[in-house]
Amino acid sequence: MHKKVAVILSGCGVYDGAEIHESVITLLRLDQRGAQVQCFAPNVPQLHVVDHYSGDEMDQQRNVLVEAARIARGNIKDVRELHVGEFDALIMPGGFGVAKNLSDFAISGVHCQVQADVQAAVQAFAKAGKPVGLICIAPALTAKLFGPGVTCTIGNDHDTAAAIAQMGAVHQECPVDEIVEDSTHKLVSTPAYMLAQSISQAAAGINKLVDRVLELTQQ
Amino acid sequence: MHKKVAVILSGCGVYDGAEIHESVITLLRLDQRGAQVQCFAPNVPQLHVVDHYSGDEMDQQRNVLVEAARIARGNIKDVRELHVGEFDALIMPGGFGVAKNLSDFAISGVHCQVQADVQAAVQAFAKAGKPVGLICIAPALTAKLFGPGVTCTIGNDHDTAAAIAQMGAVHQECPVDEIVEDSTHKLVSTPAYMLAQSISQAAAGINKLVDRVLELTQQ
Repeated sequence: MHKKVAVILSGCGVYDGAEIHESVITLLRLDQRGAQVQCFAPNVPQLHVVDHYSGDEMDQQRNVLVEAARIARGNIKDVRELHVGEFDALIMPGGFGVAKNLSDFAISGVHCQVQADVQAAVQAFAKAGKPVGLICIAPALTAKLFGPGVTCTIGNDHDTAAAIAQMGAVHQECPVDEIVEDSTHKLVSTPAYMLAQSISQAAAGINKLVDRVLELTQQ
Repeated sequence: MHKKVAVILSGCGVYDGAEIHESVITLLRLDQRGAQVQCFAPNVPQLHVVDHYSGDEMDQQRNVLVEAARIARGNIKDVRELHVGEFDALIMPGGFGVAKNLSDFAISGVHCQVQADVQAAVQAFAKAGKPVGLICIAPALTAKLFGPGVTCTIGNDHDTAAAIAQMGAVHQECPVDEIVEDSTHKLVSTPAYMLAQSISQAAAGINKLVDRVLELTQQ
């Protein structure tokens, strides 16, 4: 039986959207392991657009779903169409888009809110006891998505770890090539580019996360 | 000794730029094999911008270098700064950007011209006897870059293969998980998404191409 996995993207580009390497590595590993993948993104404007060459903000508007479609080669749906009953697991790659488009963590920090459609989708997986994988900065939303007391990692960044703890989740330090698992909540997280100095370092942890999420679909 | 490899990108997104999966798989394999990578792109406007969700053209202007910077996480240079003496090999992933931004093959077909800075860069590698890898649609430019009589593959698409032959190169059919090599010119090509039905199929051929290009740097 092919496992069906939903992947939620937050745009296309590390500084204003989904981290592209993390997203593609996730899609590649899922496909190599025989999973069927469907990408999703919220149909909302990006917080802003960053020129990834200069680092400056651009005077332009872009849509999260439309830009995320670049990573998905057009095969993507509005996250409102994500029905938990059709999937065995959910994975969310990182990138600033998680903190800017899927939530306002980049602006509001510990007082952040998760975008309503994304929150509903992830919470449906948690409620159904289906495994969820959060990559890079995505675990910063753990308390908002899973409630207090749930364990996750973003690596070892002190400020982000402190914010995660203040929101009520439990942060556990983790090297770039490892994962942290909260078995009770079937939540798996890995630091990826919160720590990675190279794309192959990011891949080491993401591959373990994907493999573990797929294993958890059988429990 | 770490091999140094230049990667020329054509934007960010299959329909108007570099194919993202092919680009990331190339970067990942190069890094996993210990190569040092520098990305490049021409500092020119994109031919157009395609909404990858709807497939429609968008009323927007984007720059090839600025968008390609998304795939490179900002670590990218103008292709005018690509000095062949600093590198051991060159790889060009595919995507419509090759036919729209790095050349006008999408419009002019067999009468196409390659963007001047890209043409100068690739021809410098050919002249220096350094290996070049062309992925997906990029081998369509073989005759323009290497001159007549050079062998390449884009898989088995009849019209593209006929155009390649008409321009003076030799097209050889190739399955998605294989490569074609012109040993005289140290040119390696693979079909990737010209044929691939999945990301792991694309990866199978691209990984072989990267490995062979790195081997050829030692000959």
